Amino acid sequence: MVAFAKGQGTGNDFVLLVDPAGEVSPTPEQVAALCDRRFGIGADGLIVATRTAAMPEHERALGGGAEWFMDYRNADGSIAEMCGNGIRVFARLLEEEGLADVRELVVGTRAGIRHVRAVDGGFSADLGAVRLGPGEPLVRAGGLAVARPGQHVDVGNPHVVVALADDDELAALDLHAAPEVEPPVVGGVNVELVVPQGIAGGEGSIRMRVHERGSGETLSCGTGAVAAAFATRHWAGGAPDRWRVEVPGGVVHVDVEQRTDGEHAWLTGPAEIVFRGQTAIL
Amino acid sequence: MVAFAKGQGTGNDFVLLVDPAGEVSPTPEQVAALCDRRFGIGADGLIVATRTAAMPEHERALGGGAEWFMDYRNADGSIAEMCGNGIRVFARLLEEEGLADVRELVVGTRAGIRHVRAVDGGFSADLGAVRLGPGEPLVRAGGLAVARPGQHVDVGNPHVVVALADDDELAALDLHAAPEVEPPVVGGVNVELVVPQGIAGGEGSIRMRVHERGSGETLSCGTGAVAAAFATRHWAGGAPDRWRVEVPGGVVHVDVEQRTDGEHAWLTGPAEIVFRGQTAIL
Repeated sequence: MVAFAKGQGTGNDFVLLVDPAGEVSPTPEQVAALCDRRFGIGADGLIVATRTAAMPEHERALGGGAEWFMDYRNADGSIAEMCGNGIRVFARLLEEEGLADVRELVVGTRAGIRHVRAVDGGFSADLGAVRLGPGEPLVRAGGLAVARPGQHVDVGNPHVVVALADDDELAALDLHAAPEVEPPVVGGVNVELVVPQGIAGGEGSIRMRVHERGSGETLSCGTGAVAAAFATRHWAGGAPDRWRVEVPGGVVHVDVEQRTDGEHAWLTGPAEIVFRGQTAIL
Repeated sequence: MVAFAKGQGTGNDFVLLVDPAGEVSPTPEQVAALCDRRFGIGADGLIVATRTAAMPEHERALGGGAEWFMDYRNADGSIAEMCGNGIRVFARLLEEEGLADVRELVVGTRAGIRHVRAVDGGFSADLGAVRLGPGEPLVRAGGLAVARPGQHVDVGNPHVVVALADDDELAALDLHAAPEVEPPVVGGVNVELVVPQGIAGGEGSIRMRVHERGSGETLSCGTGAVAAAFATRHWAGGAPDRWRVEVPGGVVHVDVEQRTDGEHAWLTGPAEIVFRGQTAIL
């Protein structure tokens, strides 16, 4: 029997294992079995917390400084570099287990070092430099009568953001099928459909839905919220630097920070451990 | 923190609580929170195991004889009388907890007394008398070019069973929308689409998919497997009395037993406790 925790952030959910010495090395089949929502525990992905010192190849690549490494796997068992909502739940686990000081946490990931801070009601994580892409792709989505122009945004993974007229149009979307993007993006793209809600007191506000490549519509996508905020800020003339983003699974905030390598996105939102258990799957 | 178990039988999954004295009385909102697959534990329903002696009103109605009562709630928090797959997982829980002799178990349910027996690889449960209904309803399902005649079957809840030509037709079905039944059944009906696979050695074999009213397509439906077996047996001339039923979530068997109140169905299949945990939701 292996002890695990199950956690979620805005409805993006994870099975979490604490494996300080890097002794657990689940096969893709075991990850898929753990993440199966009927026959297993059920989750969008598996997060294993391992001391970076126990992973020499990653420790070298990261150049030190990160005590803990977030080893993330998708529900199908494939390896992913990072997860914007998952890193908050990872921090919550370290906090509840008393394994790290989460006021200023440095996390090793396959995408490099990530900085995380505990804030009121959750955590903030620096998701790195965000870049707006060139061109004006056309997006066709179920429920939209005509194609709409979109904005490419690179948050380490590719996004296309489309503005809708109002909340009724957002609610009427049918995202069972992936929106079509022209010209198509090789390898697929995440699509965010967003309704700007106004700007007040230096804070912009948007409401959105997201179709994730490979997963379909989801309750929340961390990098998708960042992409949607950055595209709306671009359309608004490059300001403000703080955005409230309402996703189907809750509310997150996106802050823009100027850094030498470009504009970084800090993603802030809730993170919760829902239950703990023991399973014989691993 | 409340201790719970999570179990499944052919992909029909349940959160289970052992509450001998009937002290836990979850509200519909708490049941829905427990069964939420993203924010809670996630399941098709909640099963609470309580000593019948702690439930005087049920004990009187059952007339004694059942030490344990299976209190079943749907994922939306509503009360259900019985669950054909759930009662096996209930028996597995009592077995693993050492709370009952499951070789011959008498279970109290809102549908009355149910008999359960441990068998090789799982459990058999008497789901009660099954009755074929009159008339020949017409069924339209996504992926079928024309309407097909169906067979009404009452397994305590209402079913319509439709025979398909072959496995290709079964695989091509689109059950995202509920099949249409004419004349319509008040309160809705479960629809089973079944492909007879032949009869050999006194055992019939079928493959099926099911659309459950209120739930959509599911991996398994215990009473649906019974309905499908009884309808196919009827079409085959009233024999044999043992059927192998392949559902998307696995394999169950249906046996027909002649009783004074009619033909009873024994449903046999696997049951597994997948993990145990503690949660603060309750």
